Amino acid sequence: MTLEQARALDAADPLAHLRDRFALPGGVIYLDGNSLGPLTHAGRAAVADCVDRQWGDRLIRSWNEGWIDAPVRLAMKVAPLIGAAPHEVIVGDTTSANLFKALVAALRIDPERRVVVSELGNFPTDLHIAEGAVACVPGATLRAVPRADLEAALGHDTAVLMLTHVHYKTAERFDMAAWTARAHQAGALMLWDLSHSAGAVPVALNAAGADLAVGCTYKYLNGGPGAPAFLHVAERWHEHLESPLSGWMGHAEPFAFADRYQPAPGMKRWLVGTPPMLAMASLEGALDLWADIDWPALTAKSAALFDILARAGEAAGLPCVTPLDPAGRGSHISFRHPHAYALAQALIERGVIGDFRDPDILRLGLTPLYLSHEDVWRAGERLREVMAAEPWREERFATRLAVT
Amino acid sequence: MTLEQARALDAADPLAHLRDRFALPGGVIYLDGNSLGPLTHAGRAAVADCVDRQWGDRLIRSWNEGWIDAPVRLAMKVAPLIGAAPHEVIVGDTTSANLFKALVAALRIDPERRVVVSELGNFPTDLHIAEGAVACVPGATLRAVPRADLEAALGHDTAVLMLTHVHYKTAERFDMAAWTARAHQAGALMLWDLSHSAGAVPVALNAAGADLAVGCTYKYLNGGPGAPAFLHVAERWHEHLESPLSGWMGHAEPFAFADRYQPAPGMKRWLVGTPPMLAMASLEGALDLWADIDWPALTAKSAALFDILARAGEAAGLPCVTPLDPAGRGSHISFRHPHAYALAQALIERGVIGDFRDPDILRLGLTPLYLSHEDVWRAGERLREVMAAEPWREERFATRLAVT
Repeated sequence: MTLEQARALDAADPLAHLRDRFALPGGVIYLDGNSLGPLTHAGRAAVADCVDRQWGDRLIRSWNEGWIDAPVRLAMKVAPLIGAAPHEVIVGDTTSANLFKALVAALRIDPERRVVVSELGNFPTDLHIAEGAVACVPGATLRAVPRADLEAALGHDTAVLMLTHVHYKTAERFDMAAWTARAHQAGALMLWDLSHSAGAVPVALNAAGADLAVGCTYKYLNGGPGAPAFLHVAERWHEHLESPLSGWMGHAEPFAFADRYQPAPGMKRWLVGTPPMLAMASLEGALDLWADIDWPALTAKSAALFDILARAGEAAGLPCVTPLDPAGRGSHISFRHPHAYALAQALIERGVIGDFRDPDILRLGLTPLYLSHEDVWRAGERLREVMAAEPWREERFATRLAVT
Repeated sequence: MTLEQARALDAADPLAHLRDRFALPGGVIYLDGNSLGPLTHAGRAAVADCVDRQWGDRLIRSWNEGWIDAPVRLAMKVAPLIGAAPHEVIVGDTTSANLFKALVAALRIDPERRVVVSELGNFPTDLHIAEGAVACVPGATLRAVPRADLEAALGHDTAVLMLTHVHYKTAERFDMAAWTARAHQAGALMLWDLSHSAGAVPVALNAAGADLAVGCTYKYLNGGPGAPAFLHVAERWHEHLESPLSGWMGHAEPFAFADRYQPAPGMKRWLVGTPPMLAMASLEGALDLWADIDWPALTAKSAALFDILARAGEAAGLPCVTPLDPAGRGSHISFRHPHAYALAQALIERGVIGDFRDPDILRLGLTPLYLSHEDVWRAGERLREVMAAEPWREERFATRLAVT
């Protein structure tokens, strides 16, 4: 592809106008929106309003003027992005905490089913939290196996199959309907981690018949660093599952100040402590962007951006570990190279921000809301330059930063 | 006391200059800083910097430029306010989540000790979370008893005594050293909830020999609505306790992306998910205020403000349920009245913001950093007016707001 061809694609891009909704810095091509989405103007304005007017001027009164409803109000905006009904979602806490709640609750349904099945190499917090969750339910265990052995690992003892829909390294995407059906066939619940899916690919939890889902909002949903996560529980489970983190915000009447815990009906029972309103405001502002999104246009552009980088990687001799079939992947592209860390750092020096994932993955996020085809074409050029420059020979890349 | 006397106290107040650090709205006297502390100018500036520069301009790079260290950096600022060493504190999650972690960990120390002892009428989330925590440890139970029976409830089966240092309704304060000694005498750990203590009264966890503590930062520490909470674990327990919420941020090497969980040394093992940076920034800005605080002046002013309102309440015929001995209370004053809800609403109409706690408590926070003696004197005058006006006869106060 030539620069002119990339520009021609931009000229015809129905999403091009959305870039103006983002406060992107000059001089960088940001290919890390799959790790931390950028600031939106609406998010910035929402935080300023939350700080100055809601907190500064209205003070405690703001709890009655919208704050207390934020976890439910935001859920209504997240639900359509994951194919769930609004009353099946709640926004709050971290992905890890929500995973813990969902896993412990699922493990308590049936004493004959006390195994969590998951994939080795899943995003670490999923496996780590599953270790913590099984330790909270007598007889429960975690069975983490390679992807090829997942189906065989399901059985009469399985409480829940926990999978990450889009893999954080490779961007491989599970077939949600097929795997949910396999879990159900074994009599197990299906729990999806949508952290790399929400806002990246169309997600249809209810169409697939999924039981539980969690996910983060600071990647493709641009909620801000450490923005609150979401939890989905299919309606049929609402009255059968209870949160082990039985905090006052999940009480049926939080302000009755009762000694005994009584879970709220619906999704509110999954709330724990006081919601972080500044973080909620930032997310709420950013979510408004999604009201008018044309999903077919979004996925078509994601695929077009992928192709530009896949070709550049191929020309540079970099093996791509992400599936070439768009239906089989998320919205990032990953290359394997023994010196991936040095490659990522050298790209950052040249204004192309991607990231590195241990031990050998260069990961580049493709976010059609604010990246142009020209951006990605230029990033491809930088990639080819960097590969030619062999930055791994440079001493300064010998020591890794703490966060990579 | 006369207005002139109150003004004379203000003229001699060594803390009076601190009011300028707060962005308080005009036209209100804010006696609810014990529920939600007001915005500080430093907190507002810190949020703006976090949004515009750290997130907006630096994007993902900010994780290496300060974000990842925030839970430890903020802990260093909280530690002196609670009498703990900096390496014994971590900032993150909610008070409820931290309580859950600490209780489950404490219950796992000794299979012969599986009882959490606490007080009926404790802040609800403490008891609710304890219910959730005991359900995660085989054989564990919660023994909640009236205050008078607490000592007798401790025994050979007690894992942990969980008390809230300053009571959220009455402001009664436990003698931290005496109760910690009683817990230890029974062979139990002592866990303090400092939500109404941190920034309100001097707290000396290590001098008292306490084992564990949690607390919130959105009250007297002015961190913002839903600001991150803190967790304290005495150093002697660091290698013996593990978090049931074993999330990736608590891993010894979060960015090695290992399948198996390995807890970090020290307090980092209590971290769970990605820290909420906007909320952390707000708190960090607000905490800087405490570097130069003269604690004897603060407690003396809290007592002086208390006396002004106690006298006004007495003159109005309102029974005070808060101890008159300053050493036996926190920094709010509560009155009992069968129509406390209507009283609180009528005060708000007159520009005095306090709150109501079910069923019959009018609660007024006394925060010496930004309240003047004149403010509190005027609030006392409004209180007398309101009592004379008998607002509980007014129809419009018959229906309570959701959050009271």
